[in-house]
Amino acid sequence: MAPQPTPADKFSFGLWTVGWRAADPFGDATRPALDPVETVGRLAELGAWGVTFHDDDLIPFGSDDTVRADTVARFRAALDAAGMVVPMATTNLFTHPVFKDGGFTNNDRAIRRYALRKVLRNVDLAAELGASTYVLWGGREGSESDAAKDVAAALDRYREGVDTVAAYVKERGYGMRLALEPKPNEPRGDIFLPTIGHAIAFIAELEHGDIVGVNPEVGHEQMAGLNFVHGVAQALWAGKLFHIDLNGQKGPRYDQDMVFGHGDLLSAFFLVDLLEHGGYTGPRHFDYKPARTEDAEGVWASAAANMRTYLLLRERAQAFRADPRVQEALKVSGLDELRTPTLGAGESVADLLADRAAFEDFDADKAAARGYGFVALNQLAVEHLLGVG
Amino acid sequence: MAPQPTPADKFSFGLWTVGWRAADPFGDATRPALDPVETVGRLAELGAWGVTFHDDDLIPFGSDDTVRADTVARFRAALDAAGMVVPMATTNLFTHPVFKDGGFTNNDRAIRRYALRKVLRNVDLAAELGASTYVLWGGREGSESDAAKDVAAALDRYREGVDTVAAYVKERGYGMRLALEPKPNEPRGDIFLPTIGHAIAFIAELEHGDIVGVNPEVGHEQMAGLNFVHGVAQALWAGKLFHIDLNGQKGPRYDQDMVFGHGDLLSAFFLVDLLEHGGYTGPRHFDYKPARTEDAEGVWASAAANMRTYLLLRERAQAFRADPRVQEALKVSGLDELRTPTLGAGESVADLLADRAAFEDFDADKAAARGYGFVALNQLAVEHLLGVG
Amino acid sequence: MAPQPTPADKFSFGLWTVGWRAADPFGDATRPALDPVETVGRLAELGAWGVTFHDDDLIPFGSDDTVRADTVARFRAALDAAGMVVPMATTNLFTHPVFKDGGFTNNDRAIRRYALRKVLRNVDLAAELGASTYVLWGGREGSESDAAKDVAAALDRYREGVDTVAAYVKERGYGMRLALEPKPNEPRGDIFLPTIGHAIAFIAELEHGDIVGVNPEVGHEQMAGLNFVHGVAQALWAGKLFHIDLNGQKGPRYDQDMVFGHGDLLSAFFLVDLLEHGGYTGPRHFDYKPARTEDAEGVWASAAANMRTYLLLRERAQAFRADPRVQEALKVSGLDELRTPTLGAGESVADLLADRAAFEDFDADKAAARGYGFVALNQLAVEHLLGVG
Amino acid sequence: MAPQPTPADKFSFGLWTVGWRAADPFGDATRPALDPVETVGRLAELGAWGVTFHDDDLIPFGSDDTVRADTVARFRAALDAAGMVVPMATTNLFTHPVFKDGGFTNNDRAIRRYALRKVLRNVDLAAELGASTYVLWGGREGSESDAAKDVAAALDRYREGVDTVAAYVKERGYGMRLALEPKPNEPRGDIFLPTIGHAIAFIAELEHGDIVGVNPEVGHEQMAGLNFVHGVAQALWAGKLFHIDLNGQKGPRYDQDMVFGHGDLLSAFFLVDLLEHGGYTGPRHFDYKPARTEDAEGVWASAAANMRTYLLLRERAQAFRADPRVQEALKVSGLDELRTPTLGAGESVADLLADRAAFEDFDADKAAARGYGFVALNQLAVEHLLGVG
Repeated sequence: MAPQPTPADKFSFGLWTVGWRAADPFGDATRPALDPVETVGRLAELGAWGVTFHDDDLIPFGSDDTVRADTVARFRAALDAAGMVVPMATTNLFTHPVFKDGGFTNNDRAIRRYALRKVLRNVDLAAELGASTYVLWGGREGSESDAAKDVAAALDRYREGVDTVAAYVKERGYGMRLALEPKPNEPRGDIFLPTIGHAIAFIAELEHGDIVGVNPEVGHEQMAGLNFVHGVAQALWAGKLFHIDLNGQKGPRYDQDMVFGHGDLLSAFFLVDLLEHGGYTGPRHFDYKPARTEDAEGVWASAAANMRTYLLLRERAQAFRADPRVQEALKVSGLDELRTPTLGAGESVADLLADRAAFEDFDADKAAARGYGFVALNQLAVEHLLGVG
Repeated sequence: MAPQPTPADKFSFGLWTVGWRAADPFGDATRPALDPVETVGRLAELGAWGVTFHDDDLIPFGSDDTVRADTVARFRAALDAAGMVVPMATTNLFTHPVFKDGGFTNNDRAIRRYALRKVLRNVDLAAELGASTYVLWGGREGSESDAAKDVAAALDRYREGVDTVAAYVKERGYGMRLALEPKPNEPRGDIFLPTIGHAIAFIAELEHGDIVGVNPEVGHEQMAGLNFVHGVAQALWAGKLFHIDLNGQKGPRYDQDMVFGHGDLLSAFFLVDLLEHGGYTGPRHFDYKPARTEDAEGVWASAAANMRTYLLLRERAQAFRADPRVQEALKVSGLDELRTPTLGAGESVADLLADRAAFEDFDADKAAARGYGFVALNQLAVEHLLGVG
Repeated sequence: MAPQPTPADKFSFGLWTVGWRAADPFGDATRPALDPVETVGRLAELGAWGVTFHDDDLIPFGSDDTVRADTVARFRAALDAAGMVVPMATTNLFTHPVFKDGGFTNNDRAIRRYALRKVLRNVDLAAELGASTYVLWGGREGSESDAAKDVAAALDRYREGVDTVAAYVKERGYGMRLALEPKPNEPRGDIFLPTIGHAIAFIAELEHGDIVGVNPEVGHEQMAGLNFVHGVAQALWAGKLFHIDLNGQKGPRYDQDMVFGHGDLLSAFFLVDLLEHGGYTGPRHFDYKPARTEDAEGVWASAAANMRTYLLLRERAQAFRADPRVQEALKVSGLDELRTPTLGAGESVADLLADRAAFEDFDADKAAARGYGFVALNQLAVEHLLGVG
Repeated sequence: MAPQPTPADKFSFGLWTVGWRAADPFGDATRPALDPVETVGRLAELGAWGVTFHDDDLIPFGSDDTVRADTVARFRAALDAAGMVVPMATTNLFTHPVFKDGGFTNNDRAIRRYALRKVLRNVDLAAELGASTYVLWGGREGSESDAAKDVAAALDRYREGVDTVAAYVKERGYGMRLALEPKPNEPRGDIFLPTIGHAIAFIAELEHGDIVGVNPEVGHEQMAGLNFVHGVAQALWAGKLFHIDLNGQKGPRYDQDMVFGHGDLLSAFFLVDLLEHGGYTGPRHFDYKPARTEDAEGVWASAAANMRTYLLLRERAQAFRADPRVQEALKVSGLDELRTPTLGAGESVADLLADRAAFEDFDADKAAARGYGFVALNQLAVEHLLGVG
């Protein structure tokens, strides 16, 4: 039996995920729009804990203040009725044609100002709805030609934009943290801050970087052929994993946004292992798209599939860690040794240089003979994943 | 006529480049070893300015102190005779089997200590030979299985290693800077610090990060499908472009190390444009491999080809920047506007929020009608590259 | 001066290229629809020779017979006025939601029958308008899950569909040839007949394969990291290059459809060299999309850019072939020898086995010493491309 | 409990797999050579059925006739003692520098003749040892520059080479079939016949194509981002799947040759499902490399891991197919319908054109509303893979 999701699992979904109407570059929408109120109810029934949104997912672009207020009130009532929270919100700076060259880094200054205002406005709403994380996905910040951008100027503007938002959040006392979402390409030929690494490197240059981290997405890193588990681990190590987007992708190609686990399953296993045992306590947020071939029933089945797979992988990862054979194999592989500093306690460089055992008397050929047993360890992981206890 | 390289161009080559014997995963060496002394002379004749080396390129692994001293003396004499400099040196922590699980992050602590000593020893030699940059390529720091490494522990060890070397450099007053060289994979399934971004993000966590930057390589970023020009520009923006490795690659596949320009030529054009006009003043270092099909004559022809292509691209980039049609096109595309801050001088967030022109009265549809002319601008670049003035 | 295109160059464009309204997976249309009549006129002014179309580009899906007849008459008048031809037509089996699981291989039989009828109907129109090639792009024939298709059954249905259309073309005496257009993925997770190779292999299984060939597209092969020039050359070698789609792509990622030459420029150079010197006499068809950032002026500039680049590359390729240094380098590289059969005229296997010079007395080490000069040859190509004569 | 391999499972390994000494482009060998006799014994103990070899794996390049005869006799004795068979053999046309520009398509005619002789010689040995398949991997047939090869001439030579070998096999009555092994790149920049499709397309042009098929390798297709299951299914559909190479790869990057299942596990599941239920009866051949970090013990553990994973996936695939929920889901998805021809029995094109239900009266919008349930079906596969029955 697969385990059942509960709010304690902190599963959340974007309104735009189950609500995706399935238009793609070569085809029209295959499904009708979903009412956010229905989405909240259905997700709650399935065992989800939270729902997230872009401003325009909830309140259609260009709505007047009355429509806006009514829509928010109705949404809040639905959340309350369902016992659902809004752990995160974000801004749509990509659908309207005005953002065709980006928001914060658009070559057009008036559009940059408009983008900033659009973000600030939705930050207010996010705070009102209790979100603790505000995601910034700069999907249109980039170019198709290297001539089209002065990257240094673009990064100056990007920094200015993010710092302005962060300063505003602090000034208002919203207690919110910002999370940048990296992606290498699509819809732009190349997007700025293409990977987890580039985003964290950028954050180091911010004035208010203390409240800015990352929101990595499985598929986005895998579109660059990068190891998502390693990237997330580096973000955790740097104290910058503020949120995470789970889904499935089959390597470098268009952004697939499949169900979590329907892409690289072995990597999904190690990711759940890391999230569960590596100190991450935030939401498990699914940023996926139900395949275009599915009808409404298929949409909800796909939502449930994300959570079931996560829970199954969690069980498998727990069994893996608990297995004495695995613990022995980890020792053979030297995982415990890696946690020991290379220099001894209080050892100086001079001490190291004086230690003949470290170099002059070190037998490299002998040390090289050690077998690390990594393949056997990996096979234990594969077998646990396959449910062989 | 193609321009001729001179020392003022600061072209440098690794001993291991022209000296590559052309063994590959499926084949034996096709060329004899080159004597570093010959290499220095030939490169000088071709117009190069500097030569770089891994410890083991110059002094065979395991040489005794006499051989070591003699080799260094002979090499220094060759440099002096040819008027060549050593702008950079680096350590081989990958060829000997002892490093099969890495150097600084090897699961085996004794090997980590040995690796550190090997680096420190060669840092001394680099300083002796006048190198101002010391490159660290952690090509074996990584894994094939996510079970094989605790990434947080590995990054702790990596930090410890780099900080130890940096502290030593400061302590000795070598005035040298360290440059980390990122690579996504090969020879490990996944390498730690896989991109420029990840490396700079890591540097932000160092104690001695002030003297640590990056040495990006064309092919390494392109193996991840990333835009190398954008990555280098971000490194420059962060003040971290300490050195650069130029070569050619055809996208995500094995590390090809072709002649500069023999991969993505349009990207090479924009890279030269950035290096020449973006404030980089360091070496133009070719880290390439002469194809396995070439004999000695082909080796030297390939070395010359790198420099010729760079110089031709420099000419093309200068003509591009000087062309009044290009200057006009850059204006149409809004490149000048991007340099203007989004907020006015002294403008506060409150001011921005009060500016109705920025949001309430902003006509998004009208602003969206703007054509950016990026394609025409890119076509001008392509035509300049093709030599159409 | 860049050369000017003329009808003799046989440049053609799809209505859907310049007419692309620039909606993408993350954004709404940024440009108004173009009237096909305007398109014909503008392309003719720019020097194009032909225009191509999907049924639904010309006649909106679901139009009644009167609208259809009027639209066709108006289009034909425009062609006549402009002196433009219709060298190729094709069917849209991807935009309407009914095709979400494909046309010829849809799991739903009624949809397969509908798809066949839609193709046959447009084949009639193509014949009426004088098209000599009919392209079949099965962009929705594929799956996201390997469970979703029995591939053998799908290929049976694909064969049935293509053979039915081919038989119809023969029966009607249209004198038309069919061309399959391969693509690895997008909009489906994996598309059947993903490469030039798979398509030609499939054609070998057809009953009417004699009138079926391929229509390869630059970007589609490069999305799989494959060498487009090699693929096109294999198609030519097999007598199956019936049509070609020219555009630009930056390796494995979403389908970019950039201007020809704005992706891998060196490959574009060798492609033009192959098309001009390899026996291809068909249309030079641009299947590209003007970037989403461009307005109407930018659209027409981008159309012109495709042709200018092609003509410039043709000039460069001619100069390359004519250069005595290149002819000498080709000889050094052994290109002439490759055209000599490996067995002598009339030589049997028994003769080869009896030839001691071929094996017993062959000095492999000596033969291995040959340098092929490939890098120098490639550098000559790069320099010709850069306009260095 | 994981199932135990037996000879009935037809598992085979290349001598070069467990025998790989683990030198890579950046490092020296980490393991001593294995004696083929030991390999045969150890593999038999682990439950393998067959062993395969390149000529030079068994008999060192350049051995004289006495050494050759002794080596073969000793090897045959080991096979007999262990009850192992030799289902396949192949030729090494890549390690010696003489093959640096290929074998059958080398620009040097003398080398092409030598390569042919080397193949013919080993075909004799393969026949002597009872091999029924002879694999041709043309890993060096290709180029790094498009200028370096006239592809049409190269394919002419390739055809000549393969047809010569095939004719020889027929003439001698060896009853053997040839299998071409495609690979997109590495060690050449681009290899001819880069995918399953290109290889089958090439075979269609052979004189003796009736006895020539393909030997696809998991990692080789995945290096091009292609769906291996689809490719193998197309080969089966064309009657050309003569042999198969199983291993693991993580998408487009260097050739990893990991343990089967250690790459894309979900694809491995569907592959085993296809092989077991799609009519393939040949060997399950592992062409993998034990990671460079492993010692001798790790080598044998990795060999066992390949077989265990295959058997576990076979169990999972059988349970998947047998599950009534899966059978129901396949029906909902329309898999049965796909097996029904699109035209009725005896239906002509004229009949189809006359069927108003197929087009004029077809309600596309209504048909488009169908949900295919592909995601739910895929989730059932994922859960069976995870061992949830």
